[in-house]
Amino acid sequence: MSRFLSEKLSALEAYVPGEQPKIKRYIKLNTNESPYPPPKCVADAVGRQEIEDLRLYSDPECTALKAKLADLYGVKEKNVFLSNGSDEILNFAFMAYGENGAVFPDITYGFYSVFADLYGVNAEIVPLNDDFTVDINAFCGKNRLVVLANPNAPTGIALGLSEIEKIVSSNPDGVVIIDEAYVDFGAQSAYKLTEKYDNLLVVETYSKSRSMAGARLGFAFADEGIISDLERIKYSTNPYNINRITQIAGTAALVNQEYFNENCRKIAETREYVKEELRKMGFKVTDSVANFLFAKSDKISGSKLYTSLKERGILIRHFEAERIKDYNRITVGSREEMEIFLDAVREIIIGGIV
Amino acid sequence: MSRFLSEKLSALEAYVPGEQPKIKRYIKLNTNESPYPPPKCVADAVGRQEIEDLRLYSDPECTALKAKLADLYGVKEKNVFLSNGSDEILNFAFMAYGENGAVFPDITYGFYSVFADLYGVNAEIVPLNDDFTVDINAFCGKNRLVVLANPNAPTGIALGLSEIEKIVSSNPDGVVIIDEAYVDFGAQSAYKLTEKYDNLLVVETYSKSRSMAGARLGFAFADEGIISDLERIKYSTNPYNINRITQIAGTAALVNQEYFNENCRKIAETREYVKEELRKMGFKVTDSVANFLFAKSDKISGSKLYTSLKERGILIRHFEAERIKDYNRITVGSREEMEIFLDAVREIIIGGIV
Repeated sequence: MSRFLSEKLSALEAYVPGEQPKIKRYIKLNTNESPYPPPKCVADAVGRQEIEDLRLYSDPECTALKAKLADLYGVKEKNVFLSNGSDEILNFAFMAYGENGAVFPDITYGFYSVFADLYGVNAEIVPLNDDFTVDINAFCGKNRLVVLANPNAPTGIALGLSEIEKIVSSNPDGVVIIDEAYVDFGAQSAYKLTEKYDNLLVVETYSKSRSMAGARLGFAFADEGIISDLERIKYSTNPYNINRITQIAGTAALVNQEYFNENCRKIAETREYVKEELRKMGFKVTDSVANFLFAKSDKISGSKLYTSLKERGILIRHFEAERIKDYNRITVGSREEMEIFLDAVREIIIGGIV
Repeated sequence: MSRFLSEKLSALEAYVPGEQPKIKRYIKLNTNESPYPPPKCVADAVGRQEIEDLRLYSDPECTALKAKLADLYGVKEKNVFLSNGSDEILNFAFMAYGENGAVFPDITYGFYSVFADLYGVNAEIVPLNDDFTVDINAFCGKNRLVVLANPNAPTGIALGLSEIEKIVSSNPDGVVIIDEAYVDFGAQSAYKLTEKYDNLLVVETYSKSRSMAGARLGFAFADEGIISDLERIKYSTNPYNINRITQIAGTAALVNQEYFNENCRKIAETREYVKEELRKMGFKVTDSVANFLFAKSDKISGSKLYTSLKERGILIRHFEAERIKDYNRITVGSREEMEIFLDAVREIIIGGIV
């Protein structure tokens, strides 16, 4: 830290992303990436001409990508916002709507509290129920910024659409963010509710179900008012926030919806298989509908399982927060990767290494 | 605007980037892009495998790119910061160091005042001298955030290294940002001074001299303290801010320094030729050492020249600010593009269309 940094920022604790190993070839089940590559049409769309054209700025309005996305989801372009990863949308929304405070669960995506600290947003942290479900009523009638991941992370547990609507309709004077990073693996999206409620912001991403974490592309649906707020912040910070190649790749990726649907189906199927196998081994596993599992065993501590798997070349995500320190979050990889994972867990647990 | 937007942001006037035409094939001399593509090694580095790997997150530490850049400039990696375009660095710096106010010229990159407004930074606007040079003494002893583009935009006029050092050394308790977006076309970089002064932040970009505006890649040099501040903000807003392809392309682009040097030389040569030709036509042209010219004629208003050229398929940049509304900023394109530009200007001026 320099001696020039503002007092507020000096006190800030930044977000710590999952490990991104550079050397050893790990089986990477720690940052919820897809085991499947983007559809072939994406590589087809990025040729030498597209690289040569990098001399020109990207389109700040993302015209082609926005049109394609709006068309696919059946919404108007003025109801779509695009960003350099969905974290950027969350960042903008905390900056724009946090003035009167924010409400989010104790166990959820760790970045919400970082954004709250960054913008001096007074945060009310609502504990999840004992079974890690969301206490719906605790989020009703707040009329402040309400932030919920659906499915929630790292539990994977989803709310139904009627529960989301109850929260949105009971907070007419506060923006409700539904962070749907993992929605495509088995939950219901609330994006169509943005036509009915001007206070709802639904955030999605290419990073998980669309196999493009490394391209950095997030998108959001909302009433025209909220979208224009986000555009205002974008044009006041970084108008060319999305590079040319990502715009091209993101547009191309939407062409092959069959491949996308099939990948989501396979991941959900593998998830259910692994969930069952872990339960057979005595693990307590939440009912995740995301592309990850959240599990603990009475036979081994969360950190010990994490370390033992890492020694075997398998990375999962461990969190230190008191309430969930016995758990680990395990990304659902390919069936082959998950068999290797399950064998390793069996060896660790049953082999008595504990 | 929504009814939820914070009061501060509701009053904000966003930056307006130059036109990015989508349909007609303009000769684009309006956003200071390079007329030359990135070196061939960039396209060679982005193959199908790199697109397939988009399923994985990018390296938040940008390890390979940072190492290559540090090596090329002869600095340590801990003195380098990388960003999603250099606007992002300016954004972070205003957020981090604006607490006690900022000082910048009246005629300069228009984004500085937007950042100041965004973060509620009290801005002292120092007028340029009548000949558009910077009043050095007015930037000494401020001990607040000092922001100077060198060469300045849209004038293209540069300060010498000793003048920069005078400003930096006289502001020991304020950060001095030297925005060197255009430095490679004929000015001296101050980046080596960051080894001597812990309050100096030198900002550079791939957008102009490195022909990669569309890849979005900025970089900065500073003392370890300032770099760690910028990293803290990055990890508190968008840790994966630079996508995989841009990291690969940015690393590859540094391999061919000969091509880079030759492009800068050609652009400087073309600039001097066009400067001379415009002066022959009676234009007043600043002594730009950037990849653009800043010129006015007594025979035609700035807006009329802009419009007349646009009708002929040539885009230049016009600003409405009172002091410079008679001028236009003209990007230096290829020699062929500039001959077409000069012919069009001759036709407009001499043809008596005025």
